[in-house]
Amino acid sequence: MRWTLPSERIPQAWFNVVPHLPTPLQPPLHPGTRQPIGPDDLAPLFPMALIAQEVTAEPWVDIPGPVLDVLKLWRPTPLVRATRLEEALGTPARIFYKDESVSPAGSHKPNTAVPQAYFNKVEGIERLTTETGAGQWGSALCFATALFGQECKVYMVRASYEQKPYRRVMMETWGGQVEPSPIDDPESPGSLGSAISDAVRDAAGRPDSHYSLGSVLNHVLLHQTVIGLEAKEQLAEAGVERPDLIVGCCGGGSNLGGISLPFVPDRDVELLAVEPASCPTLTAGSFDYDFGDTAGMTPLLAMYTLGHDFIPPSIHAGGLRYHGDAPIISNLVQNGRMHAVAYPQGKVFEAAVQFARTQGTIPAPETAHAIRAVIDEALAAKERGEEKTILFNYSGHGLLDLGAYDDYLHDRLIDA
Amino acid sequence: MRWTLPSERIPQAWFNVVPHLPTPLQPPLHPGTRQPIGPDDLAPLFPMALIAQEVTAEPWVDIPGPVLDVLKLWRPTPLVRATRLEEALGTPARIFYKDESVSPAGSHKPNTAVPQAYFNKVEGIERLTTETGAGQWGSALCFATALFGQECKVYMVRASYEQKPYRRVMMETWGGQVEPSPIDDPESPGSLGSAISDAVRDAAGRPDSHYSLGSVLNHVLLHQTVIGLEAKEQLAEAGVERPDLIVGCCGGGSNLGGISLPFVPDRDVELLAVEPASCPTLTAGSFDYDFGDTAGMTPLLAMYTLGHDFIPPSIHAGGLRYHGDAPIISNLVQNGRMHAVAYPQGKVFEAAVQFARTQGTIPAPETAHAIRAVIDEALAAKERGEEKTILFNYSGHGLLDLGAYDDYLHDRLIDA
Repeated sequence: MRWTLPSERIPQAWFNVVPHLPTPLQPPLHPGTRQPIGPDDLAPLFPMALIAQEVTAEPWVDIPGPVLDVLKLWRPTPLVRATRLEEALGTPARIFYKDESVSPAGSHKPNTAVPQAYFNKVEGIERLTTETGAGQWGSALCFATALFGQECKVYMVRASYEQKPYRRVMMETWGGQVEPSPIDDPESPGSLGSAISDAVRDAAGRPDSHYSLGSVLNHVLLHQTVIGLEAKEQLAEAGVERPDLIVGCCGGGSNLGGISLPFVPDRDVELLAVEPASCPTLTAGSFDYDFGDTAGMTPLLAMYTLGHDFIPPSIHAGGLRYHGDAPIISNLVQNGRMHAVAYPQGKVFEAAVQFARTQGTIPAPETAHAIRAVIDEALAAKERGEEKTILFNYSGHGLLDLGAYDDYLHDRLIDA
Repeated sequence: MRWTLPSERIPQAWFNVVPHLPTPLQPPLHPGTRQPIGPDDLAPLFPMALIAQEVTAEPWVDIPGPVLDVLKLWRPTPLVRATRLEEALGTPARIFYKDESVSPAGSHKPNTAVPQAYFNKVEGIERLTTETGAGQWGSALCFATALFGQECKVYMVRASYEQKPYRRVMMETWGGQVEPSPIDDPESPGSLGSAISDAVRDAAGRPDSHYSLGSVLNHVLLHQTVIGLEAKEQLAEAGVERPDLIVGCCGGGSNLGGISLPFVPDRDVELLAVEPASCPTLTAGSFDYDFGDTAGMTPLLAMYTLGHDFIPPSIHAGGLRYHGDAPIISNLVQNGRMHAVAYPQGKVFEAAVQFARTQGTIPAPETAHAIRAVIDEALAAKERGEEKTILFNYSGHGLLDLGAYDDYLHDRLIDA
């Protein structure tokens, strides 16, 4: 069963969770002075509208019309009940998912790429720079800038640039310029840290350019709340007053935040973050101030972190290989409002294949982490004979990650 | 703008165009005797329900509940108005498209794969064989058989098997078995003709197996009419009484038939087939009885054909490289009810990139043929100042064809 909503029922405002957090957020600190940063510190890289959203305490932030016009190309996304998976598991649990894979770039990432491109455009910025690892975020930003007629320069981790040419082609099809990073060392395979440094340095050095980030920051999670807001309306149409449990995979935290933040005020709704065992920020990291990048150029954020010099193994879920977490997600976990669990990737791909063979679609490796946890929760509900209602975020499809499935199906997967 | 329909408004019956054709269809002939074939000739390969659908004169054929249950995983598909493309072209034409790319396999092909798997299942057939060239059809059948718990064996043209490993992985993820064809000559790159021969021979030799075909036949086009039926309802919601022109790309004719056949009785609606200049069956072929395969094993069909030994150049739109056309499509063209146009692939990819940069999604190379024709029609309408309403079938996405975009963007495309 699927619940769609007509275009005109797309959310008109983003939900700001900040007033609902258990404790106040700690401010970002300047990397040099270690004092709280102000708007002026961020102005060389971000437009004022996004800086304002980063610190706003308003409960709702209006979505501008031109942003809605683009989001309506694929939003509202369907809410799906995974009845075939339920039957295969023999569980009394009801499993719903929000299908964010239907966006042009194939994931939830365009939900923030579009407003970021727009707010830069209205402040006269005609060129954006960013980094990308696996390529999901770079694709989303190239899509968004194409629609607003802006240039986009993506620094792509060199190892991915060479191993995943299709992601590069996708970005170029939308008119993006893609360059392997680090730009000054063609022998290095690169890292997200080096790519962030290249992108920030580029934007800081050109008055026509700003920098764009695809996760972690407050305004990014704000933009993603359209997911949870739509899900609330669609669950009501499906006859569900509220879900018992919400599940999302967690790298930086943007897709998890998108589906779960609108439910934070609903105290009975349990929230669950799923991360890879090889990069266990929430389950094994420490809550501390740390840099967002490897080189220590960014502000310090209060978050769960494995240390900014932590280099996770090269698992297939590239979008989950980040040493830290969004401050908002970290706040929820630290205060016990959200829980976290970690899985090795063998169990994750087992769940992905079970999903594909019951529900039909092939999930991204990142998304498959959420599916693994959902299946385990549904099986636990079966043990207890419990009619639990579970909602998860189907954050992206795996059509550009089929090499990972090939490894799994032919016993070449390293089960880290 | 997008128009969705709730799950419960999915069509409950397929539309049979046969009673509405300008002249009666000519019967298929036995390859040996050249006499009209009967149901018994087809029984070793197809279930009786599909054989009955192949020859039925009933105006509507009910869709069984278990088929609807699977189709509802992604249907009804959205109807989209391409306002951003219209603006970029500065045309007074209104451009609508039916988005069939949202299926799990990424194209319209599952619309017939699902009922074919189902009707075989209810007649006790637990294993299907088929051939695939570019991989769209093989993927769709592996998806469908996975959901009905059947085995699927796909003979994949060896050149594609080696060059497009992702399509193979997709089929394997759904549990399909994929083998390069021809199976008896590992040195040969293979062809669709050789793969059909391998698949037919396999199914004919095993009582537990049937063979499945993804286009050309009447029952395949019948199953695809859900596309046009949904479009009629959605156009009405969009305030369009009827479109002036319907456009689809044409290989065997299944996606074109799917969107256009329900409009055949509406005499004012113009129908347009778009094919590659390198395989111009409708625009340069002759109407004649010919074999469906290269080896001459299949029944003879009355159709436009370039000769069953015609080998088209290896263009990127693999789904359009077929020497013949569906008898139903051929009948409509021969009688002047449908027209055809052919394009070389350079112009086709130019249209594909323009579409991606305005509407956001990246079309399959096959689909891009329809888009080329739509853009040219919209520009002609601009010349004439005509408010024409155009509907086309967005038959599939290009996410597994990005190598073709890479060739186009970097001037390596052979413009045949």
